[in-house]
Amino acid sequence: MVTSKRAPRSRPWRSSSALPLRPAKAWQSTRDTETGRIALALPSPTTPGGRFRPKAFSGEVVPFRTTAFREGHDRIGVHVRLYSPSGDESLHRLSALNDGFDRWATLIAPTEQGVWRFRFEAFADDFATWEHAADLKIAAGVDAALMREIGAQLFDRAVAERSRPVAQRRVLTDAAARLRDIGVSDADALEIVRDPAIAEFFAQRPLASLVTIGELQELLVERERAGVGAWYEFFPRSEGARRLKDGTVKSGTFRTAAKRLPGVAAMGFEVLYLPPIHPIGRLNRKGRNNTLDAQPGDPGSPWAIGTTEGGHDTVHPELGTLADFRAFVRAAGALGIEVALDLALQAAPDHPWVAEHPEWFTTLPDGSIAYAENPPKKYQDIYPVNFDNDPEGIKAEVLRVVRLWISQGVKTFRVDNPHTKPLQFWEWLIATVNAEDPDVVFLAEAFTRPAPMQALAMAGFQQSYSYFTWRNTKAELEEFLGWIANDTADFMRPNLFVNTPDILTEYLQFGGRPGYKVRAAIAATASPLYGVYAGYELYENVARPGSEENIDNEKFEYKFRDWGGAVDRGESLAPYLTRLNEIRREHPALRQRRNFSAHWSDDDAILVYSKHLAADVSPTGRSDTIIVVANVDPHSVRQTMVHLDTRIWGVRPGDAFEVEDLVTGDHWTWSDHNFVRLDAFHEPVHILHVKES
Amino acid sequence: MVTSKRAPRSRPWRSSSALPLRPAKAWQSTRDTETGRIALALPSPTTPGGRFRPKAFSGEVVPFRTTAFREGHDRIGVHVRLYSPSGDESLHRLSALNDGFDRWATLIAPTEQGVWRFRFEAFADDFATWEHAADLKIAAGVDAALMREIGAQLFDRAVAERSRPVAQRRVLTDAAARLRDIGVSDADALEIVRDPAIAEFFAQRPLASLVTIGELQELLVERERAGVGAWYEFFPRSEGARRLKDGTVKSGTFRTAAKRLPGVAAMGFEVLYLPPIHPIGRLNRKGRNNTLDAQPGDPGSPWAIGTTEGGHDTVHPELGTLADFRAFVRAAGALGIEVALDLALQAAPDHPWVAEHPEWFTTLPDGSIAYAENPPKKYQDIYPVNFDNDPEGIKAEVLRVVRLWISQGVKTFRVDNPHTKPLQFWEWLIATVNAEDPDVVFLAEAFTRPAPMQALAMAGFQQSYSYFTWRNTKAELEEFLGWIANDTADFMRPNLFVNTPDILTEYLQFGGRPGYKVRAAIAATASPLYGVYAGYELYENVARPGSEENIDNEKFEYKFRDWGGAVDRGESLAPYLTRLNEIRREHPALRQRRNFSAHWSDDDAILVYSKHLAADVSPTGRSDTIIVVANVDPHSVRQTMVHLDTRIWGVRPGDAFEVEDLVTGDHWTWSDHNFVRLDAFHEPVHILHVKES
Repeated sequence: MVTSKRAPRSRPWRSSSALPLRPAKAWQSTRDTETGRIALALPSPTTPGGRFRPKAFSGEVVPFRTTAFREGHDRIGVHVRLYSPSGDESLHRLSALNDGFDRWATLIAPTEQGVWRFRFEAFADDFATWEHAADLKIAAGVDAALMREIGAQLFDRAVAERSRPVAQRRVLTDAAARLRDIGVSDADALEIVRDPAIAEFFAQRPLASLVTIGELQELLVERERAGVGAWYEFFPRSEGARRLKDGTVKSGTFRTAAKRLPGVAAMGFEVLYLPPIHPIGRLNRKGRNNTLDAQPGDPGSPWAIGTTEGGHDTVHPELGTLADFRAFVRAAGALGIEVALDLALQAAPDHPWVAEHPEWFTTLPDGSIAYAENPPKKYQDIYPVNFDNDPEGIKAEVLRVVRLWISQGVKTFRVDNPHTKPLQFWEWLIATVNAEDPDVVFLAEAFTRPAPMQALAMAGFQQSYSYFTWRNTKAELEEFLGWIANDTADFMRPNLFVNTPDILTEYLQFGGRPGYKVRAAIAATASPLYGVYAGYELYENVARPGSEENIDNEKFEYKFRDWGGAVDRGESLAPYLTRLNEIRREHPALRQRRNFSAHWSDDDAILVYSKHLAADVSPTGRSDTIIVVANVDPHSVRQTMVHLDTRIWGVRPGDAFEVEDLVTGDHWTWSDHNFVRLDAFHEPVHILHVKES
Repeated sequence: MVTSKRAPRSRPWRSSSALPLRPAKAWQSTRDTETGRIALALPSPTTPGGRFRPKAFSGEVVPFRTTAFREGHDRIGVHVRLYSPSGDESLHRLSALNDGFDRWATLIAPTEQGVWRFRFEAFADDFATWEHAADLKIAAGVDAALMREIGAQLFDRAVAERSRPVAQRRVLTDAAARLRDIGVSDADALEIVRDPAIAEFFAQRPLASLVTIGELQELLVERERAGVGAWYEFFPRSEGARRLKDGTVKSGTFRTAAKRLPGVAAMGFEVLYLPPIHPIGRLNRKGRNNTLDAQPGDPGSPWAIGTTEGGHDTVHPELGTLADFRAFVRAAGALGIEVALDLALQAAPDHPWVAEHPEWFTTLPDGSIAYAENPPKKYQDIYPVNFDNDPEGIKAEVLRVVRLWISQGVKTFRVDNPHTKPLQFWEWLIATVNAEDPDVVFLAEAFTRPAPMQALAMAGFQQSYSYFTWRNTKAELEEFLGWIANDTADFMRPNLFVNTPDILTEYLQFGGRPGYKVRAAIAATASPLYGVYAGYELYENVARPGSEENIDNEKFEYKFRDWGGAVDRGESLAPYLTRLNEIRREHPALRQRRNFSAHWSDDDAILVYSKHLAADVSPTGRSDTIIVVANVDPHSVRQTMVHLDTRIWGVRPGDAFEVEDLVTGDHWTWSDHNFVRLDAFHEPVHILHVKES
């Protein structure tokens, strides 16, 4: 492990391995084949196939890794050289993982937004090679004089480097003289070989030869909110909706919905996502519970967009005006909440696009426009867009719509079913929008197969829905959470929604209140991005029979909820969600994606993981470690031993450390093997903070 | 599964999915982003990192695979277009693997040597989309007239294609008319939708739109011997060596060694590898059993190359002359045996290079030249080459040496310890030599970590030594054999030597004669490349104590072996090796690398695998299937059930088929579940041929 001085705070990165910058011109490449003099391969961060840029969010701790090796036994070293978007150049030392696969790595947290470039540089580490041989040989009395002279010559070489600090050069001049002095015993010469101060000189500024420079790579760093956030979803029409005396309902509006904002902010949510806010089609409108014939007063699905009053560029008159919307966004912003809009590229039959641009849809031989369908099923309230008849026209219109909402203060879009539109369309749209405003974030609601789901992320989506809701057992969660933290983190950022208007899993339907707690705790602590759809805190767990959605679904009707009453009656999860969001805010380890480590427990329902952030890469400059122990069986009391790899947070196996349960406030002394008992009906999850000793 | 006509025999490939060639100009790309209109990703064959060309040998059955998908539910198709080195262009249809990962694949065996290019082409399969929808909807009485008209318009489009055969166009004209004829019932129209002849028209020549053309890829096809061969290794100095009356030994020569060639040929070996044939250094020569001081008469290690009589360009005088060597190579060739030479880039202290080119070695501060060492151990009979002092000089010299031996009839080099020389040197050497003669094959003797081992293969080595000798349990072998057949086959071809002068594993030391049989049978059947070092057939299993090498190692002395006597006494494995090589010759399935499939057995020592070659890609035009069942515990009798996935060779689960044991001649009727009993002391391995029904 190479130790190093901390970099000054003004740098656009945090790193545990920064070195004094050595100008690139000092290096030379000997490369004349595909392989360099020292082999460098498989650089990362990267994306599968290498066609797309890998990405990170500002402040994300990213492992920079490469394969590097040379022939024979001589020692090598590996650096990574980073160029920030504004031109800051920095050099960081990698450590050998010694995993048998010749992988090298270091952790760096880039903070500046934009496209970074990086390259790996491998070199023969002449001091380390000599140190290893001289240590063995002088101690064994083999070739001692020769090894001393070789060392002296290396120190001469270092002294000749003008960029090396004068104090170092003075020490090395003296050391070279002593190595050559036959009056100095071999035992004393060995002390020079083993001098930690000298070793540190060469760790900071290696004596390098055979320098091999890898290819330049790129890394896109996006704003922190692209990768970190607690999301909340509500239907503005339900917030403040009132049932009138005649039995009809008066819709909530942006003004009434704004009254709910302080409650959402008090729970600690950071992004508020609204289902489509546009006029809802009247032709073939769906009724309650997805019935085909709407009754008078049924508000329809917000995803059936468009009437003669307007389409994607228009606010539903029942919600208010565009000015009301702007006021809502401002009010949210004042509370620290960012508003995310839905982008659902489809049209109700009465959407203005249908009359004005029938070429944006599919016209059948009988002259009719094709409904959405999955033969023989039909979805007659929606016309899917056909992107192939007039791609340029559609692109221009969607760009106009997106720019319009950006101009109203929206920076985040939750995109409905992007996997039913051409991948290349999204690649184009996101690149075009981000070129104008790199802060705009797109979340892909693509519940689809792994290939298209991952391709959408690579093509530009900053966030993704995922399979989280269907990963419920310990084994499933351990694999899934490890996967999103490690395997796909260079390009995909799953946002772990615990429920949506479309998803009420069997786990929630039948897991009772403990199930709701468990899922929220895992989502909030395992991933820096998670989300909750309103009603979760009221344990709304009744499904439409035979489906995986809530009965009396809010997609097709207004919901009336008594948030405060539920809290007063002790029947709300809101206080728990509030505490989870507080913990997320206080613990930067939870605002990272890649620092997830699963640990062992002897019980098949006790999931154990930790999230650790080292001081050198932490925004606070202090290390932060959280251990989560969750009983994922919501129907039982479980007790077991949990076995921790405490070395991850710098504690030697067997040593004791103090933990605090951030939910209950309990304190315990833990070590690497600990007994836990988790009662699903009391607190099914420990969220433990490791106290610094 | 798309069926298709067989391609004419003159084509430089064999394929089960060839289509009538459709000129590239008929296609158009709509690509204007990184992603095409239809997503294509992760093409293979390929190499990790994509920097090096993937490779195959002539006649090797290669899976061509890609990820391909589009938005929504419409059907797509995928082709691969191949360009042979001489310009043959062909088109092949991929099948969806339906594995949930949107992978598509087909098997093609390129036969022409050289650099092939290929690209994947994805398209909306308009006929298949309509067929699926029309089948469901007309049967359900939904939109029948509309679906009929859409189909008629598709058929009109096909009829307008001038390249479509007239007979097809006539059928489709009629079908379109019937679809439009209101006198034809929907039930009859459904018959047209489901007409297999029409489906076959469109399988052969799809109605494609949204055509997306992937990037051109390359595949290097090398000669068959680069990937297929049974190797034998002997020390020519031992073949015909005689102990004289004074106790000294008269070395064998190329002339005496040539007398052993018919015996090697009779065993069925195809490549004969000779350890270095050059003068052996006298300075610091090693004695018997790797002792430091040779006694008079000790011949020394052939890998300590060079005396004042000459170095790498010279034949050891005791073996004969260069003319004798050429005669030996010719005699081998007449018996169908190719001679492989060793290329060991190191020098004995008395090698001419040392005096003439001290700059090719490392000179120490005391003026001496550095021995090979692994501190504090020293290898004083060998000077390692330093490739960095005069790289151009060394490259020129090595190229001269290699060209010299090529001019003497050598086409194959077994390279000693290539991982102790710069990777980029090998990349340059092999590319340079293969540009002059693409038939030259290099085998890397790199017993090292996975990264450098695989990098050497990617950088150009046609063959590699591997971890095979250390994979002995069923679980180890199943993983290893699957790995070399699938995961690394695009760039690495392990040659499964069962022993070498350096390797006599504990399995062989303590496994008795059954152990020798088991290892040979697995090596010969699981991999198209395998090798045997002379003495294996005599069960030479005594190791130098504490080592993993034979005692009285042939590297340091002459060996006197009575090949014929051992056979006569029934104490030789030669008849078994002979039968293995006959089986390899008669069964093209065993001359393939990537067709390995592991099957299940209930016993932890019964290894089961099959090798299947489909008729369409077989050089014989007939399918070939071998099932191997091996008891890898050489000390026991084992009986168990084996469970086969018979679909691999086209047999439905539960159906019976006939097998013949190619070793014993026994015949059995097998199905997917079979009882086996394998007696290590009788025949530990079944090699079963599946009879065509």
